Amino acid sequence: MNIHAVLEELRPLLGDRLSTADAVREHHSKGEGYHPPARPDAVVFPTSTDEVAAIVSACARDKVPIVPYGAGSSLEGHVNALHGGITIDLSRMNTLLRVSAEDMDATVQAGVTHRQLNRHIEKLGVAFFVDPGADATLGGMASTRASGTAAVRYGTMREAVLGLRVVLPNGCVISTGGRARKSSSGYDLTHLFVGSEGTLGVITELTVRLHPLPEAVSAAVCSFATLEGAVRTVITTIQYGIPVARIELLDEVQIDAVNKYAKLDYPAMPTLFFEFHGTSERHVIEQAETAQSICTEHGGTSFQWATKPEDRARLWRARHDAYYATLALRPGSQGVTTDVCVPISRLADCVLETKRDLASSSLITTLVGHAGDGNFHLIYLVDPERPAELDEAKRLNDRMVKRAIEMGGTCSGEHGVGSGKMLFVELEHGDAVDVMRLIKRAIDPDNIMNPGKMIRV
Amino acid sequence: MNIHAVLEELRPLLGDRLSTADAVREHHSKGEGYHPPARPDAVVFPTSTDEVAAIVSACARDKVPIVPYGAGSSLEGHVNALHGGITIDLSRMNTLLRVSAEDMDATVQAGVTHRQLNRHIEKLGVAFFVDPGADATLGGMASTRASGTAAVRYGTMREAVLGLRVVLPNGCVISTGGRARKSSSGYDLTHLFVGSEGTLGVITELTVRLHPLPEAVSAAVCSFATLEGAVRTVITTIQYGIPVARIELLDEVQIDAVNKYAKLDYPAMPTLFFEFHGTSERHVIEQAETAQSICTEHGGTSFQWATKPEDRARLWRARHDAYYATLALRPGSQGVTTDVCVPISRLADCVLETKRDLASSSLITTLVGHAGDGNFHLIYLVDPERPAELDEAKRLNDRMVKRAIEMGGTCSGEHGVGSGKMLFVELEHGDAVDVMRLIKRAIDPDNIMNPGKMIRV
Repeated sequence: MNIHAVLEELRPLLGDRLSTADAVREHHSKGEGYHPPARPDAVVFPTSTDEVAAIVSACARDKVPIVPYGAGSSLEGHVNALHGGITIDLSRMNTLLRVSAEDMDATVQAGVTHRQLNRHIEKLGVAFFVDPGADATLGGMASTRASGTAAVRYGTMREAVLGLRVVLPNGCVISTGGRARKSSSGYDLTHLFVGSEGTLGVITELTVRLHPLPEAVSAAVCSFATLEGAVRTVITTIQYGIPVARIELLDEVQIDAVNKYAKLDYPAMPTLFFEFHGTSERHVIEQAETAQSICTEHGGTSFQWATKPEDRARLWRARHDAYYATLALRPGSQGVTTDVCVPISRLADCVLETKRDLASSSLITTLVGHAGDGNFHLIYLVDPERPAELDEAKRLNDRMVKRAIEMGGTCSGEHGVGSGKMLFVELEHGDAVDVMRLIKRAIDPDNIMNPGKMIRV
Repeated sequence: MNIHAVLEELRPLLGDRLSTADAVREHHSKGEGYHPPARPDAVVFPTSTDEVAAIVSACARDKVPIVPYGAGSSLEGHVNALHGGITIDLSRMNTLLRVSAEDMDATVQAGVTHRQLNRHIEKLGVAFFVDPGADATLGGMASTRASGTAAVRYGTMREAVLGLRVVLPNGCVISTGGRARKSSSGYDLTHLFVGSEGTLGVITELTVRLHPLPEAVSAAVCSFATLEGAVRTVITTIQYGIPVARIELLDEVQIDAVNKYAKLDYPAMPTLFFEFHGTSERHVIEQAETAQSICTEHGGTSFQWATKPEDRARLWRARHDAYYATLALRPGSQGVTTDVCVPISRLADCVLETKRDLASSSLITTLVGHAGDGNFHLIYLVDPERPAELDEAKRLNDRMVKRAIEMGGTCSGEHGVGSGKMLFVELEHGDAVDVMRLIKRAIDPDNIMNPGKMIRV
C-alpha cells in the first residue's frame, strides 16, 4: 500500500476534512469495547457519496485499508484500524434526505443517528423503533444489524432497512432494494450489506421503514422472587402472542446498579420492564392485564403501571442507563459486554446455566436482556490493569456462547462480530463460512474493506 | 456436458426415481406461465438432502444444468429447462421435520406445501401465513420470495424464513441462519438464497417462522363506486396503521368473473375484501369499525361483515378462485399474469394509469391486488393461437413495469424473475446487477444452476 500517494490525492478534495493529527487518529482507534486500540494512518470526513466514492477509488488503486466509522459505539472492535489505512468517518453525512409519513419510510445519509431521525419525524406521527443504547448512526446500525429494546415488536435493522446506497470496494456506487414493501426482483443485496460490518463496501445512504406512533402507550415494572420466574414470564408472554412493544429483563445486580446510579428505589430483585403499544387505550389495557396475570402466575411480587409520559420516561431512562450504571459499580473498570440470543424456549436454561457459572466467579457482572427476543447481555466489570480478569471474562463468555449455539442460538444477537467473535462465527455457521468467503473475495478481492473483521479471509 | 455419464451414475442410487420418460419430461417442461416449454433430459425425485447432494455433485462434474422444481406453479418460466439437463423434483421431500409451538417455528423439507404445513400445525394453535394462490412448496416459495394475501400483516417469505439447508453447486451442503429470532453473526446468506430462484443452489430444508392463530377473526366485503375510491381506502387504512391481516382489491371485471365462476352475486363494482385478526373480539371490532368508516369516506356503498367461519371461507374462496374465474371468462385462453408493486402512496396513480392503458386494448383483463402491500396483478386473457395478443399483453406489461419502477416500485412483487423479467431486473437495479453477477459467478462458476434465469451471467 502507498498511503502517502492516496493522501496527496485526497487532500485537494477534502482540505481540512482529511486529518492525520494524533488526537483524531487516537479517537478513531477504537469503539467502546475492550479490544486493543489500533490507529488508522488518517481519518477523512466526507459529506457526500461522491466524496466517499473518490476516497474508496483512491484507496483501491493503492490497496489501502478502509475502515468505515459512524458514532464509534461498536462493542466488538469493528472500527479499530487493525491494518492502518484510512478511516472514513461518516458523521458529517447527517442529512435527512426524504421523509414520507404516507409511505412510512425515510431516506437518510448514513451519519444520521436514530435519535436525530426520531426528533425530526415525531411531528409527522411516525417513529423509527430500532434503538440501541448508544445514539449510533443508522449506517453503523445497518452494518452491524443492530437492534434494541423494541425489536420484539418492530424488528431489527434486518427488517427496518428497505434499501441502501453503497460504495463498493472498487469505488463504484450502487443502489440496493427499493421503496416497495416487497419485491421478488433479483438477489437480496440489501440484506447482504446489512450486517456486513463494512467488509463489502461503505453504506452512504439508507432507506428505512417507519411505523405509526402508537395511539396508546403504557408501561409497567414487575419484580420477581426468582430470575427463573421473570424469564418464564417473558417466555409465556411471547408464546401467548401478546404484541408487547418492549419486554426487558434486568437481574438483581443490574437493578441495584440502576438504583445507585439514578437514585431510584426499585426492589433489588430480578425485574421486568414492559411497554405496550396499541390502537386504543382499551387495546393497551387488554395487553397489560394479560401480562399482569402472567406475572402473578410466575411469582411477580408487584406490577406497577406507568401510563403518564413522564413516568414512562423515567422508567426507560433507568433501563437505558444500565450500561453506565454498571460501570459506576466499580469506578475505573472496563465493561466487557456479551450478547447471545437463543430460541425463546431455551432462554430460561441459557440464563440460569449462565448465572450458575457466574456464581463461581469473582467478577462483578450484571445481566440485562431484550428477553422477548431471547437475547441477553452480561456486562463483566474488569480492571484494565489486571489481564487475568479479562481472561476470566473471556473464558466465561466462551462457555456462554458455546451454550447458546448448542441451544440453536447465535453468538451475537445485535452487537456484531467485529474482530472479537470471528472464531465464534465459524463455530456457529460451519461450512457456510466458505460461502461468506467466496462472496467477500468476489466483491473485495484485495481485502481492503475493514480487513480483519467478521470472517478470516 | 455429458448427460449420459451422469444418468448412469445416478441410476443405481435413484432407481425408478430417475425418469427420462417423455410424459415426465413434458410435465416438467413448464410452470403455469405463458413461457414456451423446454424439457429437461431427465427428472429425478430425491427424498433426502444427501441424495440431492449426490445428484448435484454428479451434475457439477459434467457441467450438466440443474433445474429445481417444486409444485410447478411458477408464473415466470422458472422451471422451464432452457438448456436441458436434469430437473430435481423436490415434491417427495415432503416431511415435516420439527414443529415448535413454543418457539413458533418449524423445520420442513423443501417439498412441503403451505397448505400441508397448516393442516399439521393448526391443532397446535399456530399458523403459517404466506399463502400464494397455488399450493406451492415452501422450497419454491422461498426461491421466488413468494407472498400472498396476508403479507400486509405477516410478511413474505423474506420475513418468514429463519434458516435454510442448501446444496451448493459443487455438491457441498450448508446450513444458513438459525432459530434465534435475531442475529448479527455473519453475512445474511439466508436472505441471499431466499429469492435466488435456484440459481445459487438447491434449497432442501427450511426453518420458517409461525404465528399464533388469532384469538379473534372477522372479515368484510365492501363495494365502491369507483376504483379510485377503493384504492384510496386501502391507502388510508394502511396509513392509519390499522393492523389489517388481509386487504384485497378486485376490479369490476374480476368481480364479474368471480360471480360467474362461483355463482355469487357481489355487485359488479370495484371491491375490497378485508380480514381482521386481533387479540380479542373487541380488538377486531375496533379495527373493522375504523375500516368501515374509511370505506364510507371514500364512497364505499356497502360494508358486509362476515364473522362466521363458513361465511369467511366462502368469501376467501371467491378471492382464491380469482385466477381460474378469469380464465373461465374466455375458455381456451391463456392467462398472462403481471405483478408490480409500488410504494403505497403511488398505488392509486399506478392502478389508474394502468387501467387507462387497458381501456384502449381489446384484451379481456382482470385486476386483483394485495393492495395493502402496493402490489397488484393484471391477468390478460390471450388466445394461444394468436401471437399478436401475447405481444399486446407484453407491450402493456412493459409500460406498466416501467411505470412502477419510475414510481419507486419493483418489476415483481412476489412472482419472481425467471426467464420472463431478466431485462426488467436490469432496468430496476442498474449497476447493482453487476454485484449480483459477481455473486453468481463466485458461487456457481460453471453456471449449472437454473441457467437462463434471474440475471444474464
